[in-house]
Amino acid sequence: MTQRIAVIPGDGIGKEVMPEGLRALEAAAARFGIDLTLEHFDFACCDYYAEHGQMLPDDWFEQLKDVDAIFYGAVGWPDTVPDHISLWGSLLQFRRRFDQYVNLRPCKLLPGIKSPLADRKPGDIDFYVVRENTEGEYSSVGGKMFEGTDREVVIQETVMSRHGVDRVLKFAYELAQSRPRKKLTSATKSNGIAITMPWWDERVKAMGANYPDVAVDQFHIDILTANFVMHPDWFDVVVASNLFGDILSDLGPACTGTIGVAPSANINPDGSFPSLFEPVHGSAPDIAGKGIANPIGQIWSAAMMLDHLGQPEAAQAIVDAFEAVLAEGDKSVLTPDVGGNGSTETLGRAIAKRI
Amino acid sequence: MTQRIAVIPGDGIGKEVMPEGLRALEAAAARFGIDLTLEHFDFACCDYYAEHGQMLPDDWFEQLKDVDAIFYGAVGWPDTVPDHISLWGSLLQFRRRFDQYVNLRPCKLLPGIKSPLADRKPGDIDFYVVRENTEGEYSSVGGKMFEGTDREVVIQETVMSRHGVDRVLKFAYELAQSRPRKKLTSATKSNGIAITMPWWDERVKAMGANYPDVAVDQFHIDILTANFVMHPDWFDVVVASNLFGDILSDLGPACTGTIGVAPSANINPDGSFPSLFEPVHGSAPDIAGKGIANPIGQIWSAAMMLDHLGQPEAAQAIVDAFEAVLAEGDKSVLTPDVGGNGSTETLGRAIAKRI
Ligand SMILES: CC(C)[C@H](C(=O)O)[C@@H](O)C(=O)O
Ligand SMILES: CC(C)[C@H](C(=O)O)[C@@H](O)C(=O)O
Repeated sequence: MTQRIAVIPGDGIGKEVMPEGLRALEAAAARFGIDLTLEHFDFACCDYYAEHGQMLPDDWFEQLKDVDAIFYGAVGWPDTVPDHISLWGSLLQFRRRFDQYVNLRPCKLLPGIKSPLADRKPGDIDFYVVRENTEGEYSSVGGKMFEGTDREVVIQETVMSRHGVDRVLKFAYELAQSRPRKKLTSATKSNGIAITMPWWDERVKAMGANYPDVAVDQFHIDILTANFVMHPDWFDVVVASNLFGDILSDLGPACTGTIGVAPSANINPDGSFPSLFEPVHGSAPDIAGKGIANPIGQIWSAAMMLDHLGQPEAAQAIVDAFEAVLAEGDKSVLTPDVGGNGSTETLGRAIAKRI
Repeated sequence: MTQRIAVIPGDGIGKEVMPEGLRALEAAAARFGIDLTLEHFDFACCDYYAEHGQMLPDDWFEQLKDVDAIFYGAVGWPDTVPDHISLWGSLLQFRRRFDQYVNLRPCKLLPGIKSPLADRKPGDIDFYVVRENTEGEYSSVGGKMFEGTDREVVIQETVMSRHGVDRVLKFAYELAQSRPRKKLTSATKSNGIAITMPWWDERVKAMGANYPDVAVDQFHIDILTANFVMHPDWFDVVVASNLFGDILSDLGPACTGTIGVAPSANINPDGSFPSLFEPVHGSAPDIAGKGIANPIGQIWSAAMMLDHLGQPEAAQAIVDAFEAVLAEGDKSVLTPDVGGNGSTETLGRAIAKRI
C-alpha cells in the first residue's frame, strides 16, 4: 500500500534543500522497499501569495487532509510578505487545523559539527524538546484599544486548556519512559507568570502520577535557558508550552551547533490528520539562491517522517548516513557552514549514496 | 546631604551575601566621602511570611517610598512559601508600585571566570539587557473556567501599553547612544505572537526616528537566544519585554559564566520613587547556610546603586576591585564556584580591602 507524501518546498532555501530531502527519502524508500507517492504543491509560500493575495488556496484543507504526511521546506520572505502574515497563513494553520499538537525536536551533538560550547563531544548532549504546538501563547485572542493615541493598550491572551496541555504532557512522559534515562524536565515560569504557569505545574504533577518510573524536575524558563548552556548534559526530555518550547528548541540546537541542520516534527499522534516534517532553519534570505544551504535539516526531517510512518529502520539508515558523511569530513562534499566548499547538492548526493 | 539606603537581605544566601555587599558599599563610601544612612528592614522574606502570613507589612509603601535606593538580597524559599506568592508579595510589588520600569543587567566576560562558551575571552562579550519591568506578560489579568473538569481553560493576558513600552525603549535607545558601538537589538516574536509583538516592532521603529545615530536590528526570541550562544559579540544593548528580558538576562550572564555574580538594577529613571538593586542569583536553597555563596553579585549591585546615585567613580572603584581580585586568582580567597576554597566572607573582605 502506498504512502502519500505532500511535498511543499516553500520559500528561500526551502526550495533548495527540498530536492536533497527527496533524494534521501527516495534512496531510503528504494533500499527498504517502501512505496511512496510524492504529491507536489506550490502553495504555502510567498510566491503563491504574490499571485493570489493569500498563502493557501481556499480548499487547502481538502487537498491535504488525506495524505499520510506533509514534507515541508521553509516559509517566509519578509521583504515581500510580513512574517506574521506568511506564517499564520500557512505553517501555523497546518499545525492547528491538522491538530499537530506535538512539536518534537532533537538536540544532539553530531560528529564533525563544532559546538559553540567548550569541551563537549558527541554523546554528551542528546535530548528532545517536546513543545505544545497548537495553543498557549500563540493565540489569536486580543486586540488594541485607544489605538494610535498615547493611551494605547494592546492585549494578547495566552489560552491553555486541560485538553491541550494534558495530551502533550502524556506524549512527553511516554517519550521519557521509552528512553534509558527516563527523565522529564518541565519548563515553567510559575514565579512570574502567576495564572497559567502554576496551573501548568499542577498538570505536570497530576500526569506524573501515571508514570511513577519517570523522574521529573522543573526549571523556570530563565534559568532553564541558562542551564541549556551550562549543563546540557542534564536533559533527556524537556516539555514546554508553545512559546517556551519555541525558544528551547532553537536554543538547544544552537548549543549543539546544529541549528542549521536540526529537524522538527509537527505530530498529530492519533493520526486523524497528517503530521508535518520540516527543518528548523527558516527560509534564510541571506544565503538563498547561492546553492550552499546545508540540506541535512531537510534530510533529517525525512528520517523523522519515515519513523512516524512506521519505518524506523529506514529512518535510522538516513541518520547513520549523514552522521557518517559528517564524520568523514570531506571538504569538497560539505557545505560552507560545516567547514566545506561543496554545495547543497554535493552534500545531498553524498548522503543519498551512503543510504 | 545623606543618602538613605533601605537594606533588605531577604532569604537564603541573600542573608549571607548582604553583609559583604554592605562592606564593599561602606568601603567605597568612605573612600569617596559619600554620606550614606543604612536603614535595615526585616520584611520581604519568607521568615516574615511565616510570622505574619504576608510578605510585607501593610505600610511598606510608606516605609520605603522616601529612601534613595533599596538594596535587596534575594527572595524565595519554596519549601515554605510557593514562589508565586513570595515573589508577587515582595519584589514584583516593589517593581510595580515604585514604577521601576527598567531592569538593567550587564552581560560581561570577566577575568578569572570561565565561560561555558568555547574560545571567548574578556572583552569579547560586553552588553546590556534592558528589560521592561512592570507590565507585559507579567500580568495579573486572567483566570480559569470549568475549573477542575476536563473542559478546564486557563487564560492569562499580556498587557502592553504605549506609555509602558515607549519609556523603556527611550531608555534603551539612550543607553545605546551613550556607548561606543551605538547598537540596539530588539527582542521580538512578531511572527508567532501576532497581536502584541508586531505592535512592539512598530514602537521600536517609531522611537528610532528620534535616534538616527543608533543602529537597530531585531531578532525573534527563539533565534535571539541561539545567537546569544553563537554570536554574543554581536550585541551592545538588547531591549526586551518583561518575559523576554527575564529570559535574556539570565541567559546572557550564563553565556559569560557570571550567572552567580551578575547584578541587576530595577530603575525608576525619573526618580519619583526609589530604585532597587539586587543580584541576579536567587536565594539558592541548595547552598544556603554553608557560607560559600559568591558575594560579587551583591557587591556589583552596590556599584550599580552608587552609579545610579550619581557616584560613577565610586561605582567604578568597586568594579575594578572585584575584577582585580578575580584576576589575581588567590584560591584561599575565592569561593568554590570560581575555583577557590574560601568563603563568602574571605572574598568579600578581599574586595573591600582593594576598594
Ligand atoms: C523571581 C522572578 C519572579 C524574577 C522575575 O522573573 O522577574 C527573577 O527571575 C528576576 O529576573 O528578577
Ligand atoms: C516561524 C515561526 C512562527 C515558528 C514558530 O514560532 O513556531 C518557528 O520559529 C518554529 O519554531 O517553527
